[in-house]
Amino acid sequence: MGSYTFTENTLRTFTHSIFVKMGCSDEHAALATDVLIRSDLRGIDSHGVARLNGYVRLWEKDRINTKSNITIVHETPSTATVDGDRGLGLVVAPFAMKIAIEKAEKVGSGWVSVRNSNHFGIAGYHALMAVERNMIGFAMTNASPLVAPTYSVERMLGTNPMCYAFPAGKYPPVIIDMATSAAANGKLEIAQRAGLSVPQGWIQDRNGTNSEDPHELKNGGSLLPLGSDKSHGSHKGFGLSATVDILSAVLSGANYGPWAPPFVAFLEPPSDPVGQGLGHFLGAMRVDGFRPIEEFKSHLDNWIERFKSAEPVSVDQPVIIPGEPELEAEKIRKVTGIPIVASVVNDLNDLAAKFGIARLL
Amino acid sequence: MGSYTFTENTLRTFTHSIFVKMGCSDEHAALATDVLIRSDLRGIDSHGVARLNGYVRLWEKDRINTKSNITIVHETPSTATVDGDRGLGLVVAPFAMKIAIEKAEKVGSGWVSVRNSNHFGIAGYHALMAVERNMIGFAMTNASPLVAPTYSVERMLGTNPMCYAFPAGKYPPVIIDMATSAAANGKLEIAQRAGLSVPQGWIQDRNGTNSEDPHELKNGGSLLPLGSDKSHGSHKGFGLSATVDILSAVLSGANYGPWAPPFVAFLEPPSDPVGQGLGHFLGAMRVDGFRPIEEFKSHLDNWIERFKSAEPVSVDQPVIIPGEPELEAEKIRKVTGIPIVASVVNDLNDLAAKFGIARLL
Repeated sequence: MGSYTFTENTLRTFTHSIFVKMGCSDEHAALATDVLIRSDLRGIDSHGVARLNGYVRLWEKDRINTKSNITIVHETPSTATVDGDRGLGLVVAPFAMKIAIEKAEKVGSGWVSVRNSNHFGIAGYHALMAVERNMIGFAMTNASPLVAPTYSVERMLGTNPMCYAFPAGKYPPVIIDMATSAAANGKLEIAQRAGLSVPQGWIQDRNGTNSEDPHELKNGGSLLPLGSDKSHGSHKGFGLSATVDILSAVLSGANYGPWAPPFVAFLEPPSDPVGQGLGHFLGAMRVDGFRPIEEFKSHLDNWIERFKSAEPVSVDQPVIIPGEPELEAEKIRKVTGIPIVASVVNDLNDLAAKFGIARLL
Repeated sequence: MGSYTFTENTLRTFTHSIFVKMGCSDEHAALATDVLIRSDLRGIDSHGVARLNGYVRLWEKDRINTKSNITIVHETPSTATVDGDRGLGLVVAPFAMKIAIEKAEKVGSGWVSVRNSNHFGIAGYHALMAVERNMIGFAMTNASPLVAPTYSVERMLGTNPMCYAFPAGKYPPVIIDMATSAAANGKLEIAQRAGLSVPQGWIQDRNGTNSEDPHELKNGGSLLPLGSDKSHGSHKGFGLSATVDILSAVLSGANYGPWAPPFVAFLEPPSDPVGQGLGHFLGAMRVDGFRPIEEFKSHLDNWIERFKSAEPVSVDQPVIIPGEPELEAEKIRKVTGIPIVASVVNDLNDLAAKFGIARLL
């Protein structure tokens, strides 16, 4: 499938216009745009402007409130619960992370559980807000149920990402940003579009049999937790995903497990909700709440150097430091632009027509 | 191999005597004993009295200080760094968790990074200290390097466990307590003793080729991160293990990565340390810093019920809630006693002879 390359600015202007047309304030539109474009810049194409259409459809169904009044509903000096008022997660999560950072500035750390929100884009965006302030950043969210627990065929959990981000000195930050399933849904979508099979251990069919067909989810199949099967630790992937679900939703009062509302607008949310919207969990810890920041950074630099020079299986492929590929992509795409596949360009042009703004091309 | 069954009390008295003979105060001996026996009760035989001999050998080499003066070296209202003074991790970690809990009582959450410690037993023990006070507990530790990062054949990381524990209402707590490697070292040891092969994806040989031989580690092989290989997400297992290493050791000033001192006394620690001893990271968050505790517990009960009733692959095997098998083991072993394999009984009797106390049998 072909693709077209756009400058960052072209995509920013376009995306910003759509959010404004949806009723966002200029400030909210800029923030939501930044989260999506940053994802495209970092090479995580599945979570960037490719999702814009999805947000529009949820808004059309009145499942996203673009005029949300985001509030703190409960707090202590280092913790808070935020109600997103059905807002865009792209706006609610940075709001919550700001609170976490402010608390960390005052008492060393801040932890915010969020309810009544929607999909928040890439977890790394939010965690990096803390890193820029010499803090360690944490970001998690629950999501549409697609993953079956170990021993089950029922979709009970989202791909529930967890992100941990650490500021380094002369090197870029170390960023672990990962779905807790064996494969992120975005990777399935790529295989679906390309007509390729997927490795054993990513998905199972309706009966719990391993499948290599990326379309199996449409037939009642499910994604498998990180670890893929019991003997390789899928109960650990399930446990991590459960952790994300409990911290994000049971703790905040959002919908958890199979009650998490689906991202796709053609599926209705469960009619018996156990909470409000989706949930997130965000945290920030001041590094100098533990040791002087320069000491930490110099040791993390040493950590990075030592791991990069670990003896490789093959000389062609050294160890990759978590976060490095995304940073490389960002450097390149800032200069050469962002490639968008033709089907997404078509989607975006349809949005342009719908809202009466200029087409992308 | 045969085993002998002992009452909890018999093992407690025996273990306590050994720790006292090593120079521990009565209080420290009781605490260290409780961590080990709780592990045996919970069915995690690899981390219980089977390790006692290992602690004694480290003490004989002066790598454990049984008269440690554990101190806070840095703190904010919600964070602290603790120096374990080369003490038993079994004593240092509960000390640090107490500080985390006290901070959580005051400001909502408490986070403690620990340096200059030793192996702390099962992570779950420490996390449960928070749960008993209606808090969410976190516990992590780095450990002897046995695991190779994705794309490497070098042992750079320990099996670095992470534990998250949540208080429920009418059900037992949800406890995710997991090595971030595909298989814990204890499982390899079981296969070694039984002369069995292990599944593909647990270990690789010196050249990075998958191996089913549990003895391969002796020939320069290494454990694989959770996910086993790149296409099944081993970079995620590596990322989780890196998170544990950074929070436990880079943040506290302990030894990280391949510098982590080995647990086995016959291997010397690296001669060029980058910090002091092993590191841990412990945390506690008050549930009512986010929402009223009874609300949280009732929703977590609902979460547990819903996941237990998820449609199973096979009717014989329902979904297992994380922490459930250990709790079942504890209930049973409290009544029927703790089985100890013959080789461990011999080890313990050798210790009895060494210290001049009564043999186990």
